[in-house]
Amino acid sequence: MNNRKKIAIVGVGLIGGSMALQLHEKKLSSKLIGVEASAKHAEQALEYELVDEILPLEEAIVQAEIIVLAVPVNVQVQLLPRILDKVSHQIVMDMGSTKSDVIASVEGHPNRGRYVATHPMWGTEYSGPQAAVRGAFEGKAVILCNRSESDADAIEWVEKMYQKIGMRIVDMDAKAHDLHVAYVSHISHITSFALANTVLEKEKMESAIFQIASAGFESTVRLAKSNPAMWVPIFLQNKENVLDVLTEHIAQLTKFKAYISEKDEENLQALISDANKINRIIK
Amino acid sequence: MNNRKKIAIVGVGLIGGSMALQLHEKKLSSKLIGVEASAKHAEQALEYELVDEILPLEEAIVQAEIIVLAVPVNVQVQLLPRILDKVSHQIVMDMGSTKSDVIASVEGHPNRGRYVATHPMWGTEYSGPQAAVRGAFEGKAVILCNRSESDADAIEWVEKMYQKIGMRIVDMDAKAHDLHVAYVSHISHITSFALANTVLEKEKMESAIFQIASAGFESTVRLAKSNPAMWVPIFLQNKENVLDVLTEHIAQLTKFKAYISEKDEENLQALISDANKINRIIK
Repeated sequence: MNNRKKIAIVGVGLIGGSMALQLHEKKLSSKLIGVEASAKHAEQALEYELVDEILPLEEAIVQAEIIVLAVPVNVQVQLLPRILDKVSHQIVMDMGSTKSDVIASVEGHPNRGRYVATHPMWGTEYSGPQAAVRGAFEGKAVILCNRSESDADAIEWVEKMYQKIGMRIVDMDAKAHDLHVAYVSHISHITSFALANTVLEKEKMESAIFQIASAGFESTVRLAKSNPAMWVPIFLQNKENVLDVLTEHIAQLTKFKAYISEKDEENLQALISDANKINRIIK
Repeated sequence: MNNRKKIAIVGVGLIGGSMALQLHEKKLSSKLIGVEASAKHAEQALEYELVDEILPLEEAIVQAEIIVLAVPVNVQVQLLPRILDKVSHQIVMDMGSTKSDVIASVEGHPNRGRYVATHPMWGTEYSGPQAAVRGAFEGKAVILCNRSESDADAIEWVEKMYQKIGMRIVDMDAKAHDLHVAYVSHISHITSFALANTVLEKEKMESAIFQIASAGFESTVRLAKSNPAMWVPIFLQNKENVLDVLTEHIAQLTKFKAYISEKDEENLQALISDANKINRIIK
């Protein structure tokens, strides 16, 4: 992969900005074009040298060989069909956290083959161009969805690009993807938001409460800083799966509540020993 | 504080072991005596040079000037009165995560003044002597409870010791302590255990689920590796507060469930914006 490409990044925030840094770092881009709805973010993206120039979407599509969508998932379902309307040879890929709706938005589109659906499993609780970080994505998994619906050359470029960034490719159909990420990503954000609200509510009466917050608390609550503009559309697009996991999670919490209430030491011990098995997975 | 003390550490695990390392590092101890119910842990504590020797409790009490209790909170309420029965000049302190029950266990004891109730806000999800780490506790808060019930010389030594380790001292009565830690520590462990169980249950059917686990998931679930022998007694001793917080937390999760279910974008946005306010506290 020694021929660098002209690449347009649509949405130069946390994800798009970090991707831009990697595309440059790994010598994958000959030029990076930013497309950005927020004037402030556009300015910052240039100031931090995430992209070489900012262009309107239409013009970026014409100039670019590769178009990377990194906008909230509700914007994706609107933009992707419009972009596919205008491409011919270009490769279009997205990086969003839900897959069924965005893939459905271009089902049967004459240029469907130019689009590759991906989801790199990386992010932080921060947002905007200033949140972009060097070395992002490396060592993590990236999910490629519904591979057979994309053209072979498009898949090939996207795969090589992710491999060069140091990502591990996992294939999944969109339905399985949306189910799995509800468990290993979306629910973590909801528990963190809810935990922050639980404690912030209490703080209104007990202002000293955060003097003593420890690293354990910080760890479980840090995702609560995440951007609502990104996460509300994710929860709504993945509604059925998220509701299923949330129902299960509330049932698990209710078990803890019952056993603590009954001072049932043995069952409490068993619940925690079960939870300890997570150390098979998380080192 | 240039006169080093002979210090007995009762329970040489994560907390006691890390404390032993700091007492040596900060030149606070002339000798470190370990008291350890588990033969395996006793052996490891010597092998890792956490303590100079292992002695039975009775003998350690006789030799030591300072006695540090670092055992599960259910063991503390049994040991502390027995230890106070035998001390005269010695200072006794504990490091446990609950305070009302342990303080009640020695209420009116003729040697109550020799005991100082403390809770350093530090820990990890690992346990045993091999989990002891250098530099633990530094930069964190330590809570001193019911200061007026302890002798002045005992308070003075304990305060200077924690300051030398680099901790910030916060005063609280036992009741306020137990309420506050339910919010900023105990609930985080329960949400993490429950989240691990939610996902592990699903994994029985979907074995691929953890291939794609990301850093956000790891962050919210890492406390689920914590030791049941330590945490079951904490939840049971702090039952009323823990149940209150758990009830509130389930109510917060239920709000998310309702708004997602109703596709109520505006209220969902508001819930997450509220949660974002945690960035006032957690940088």
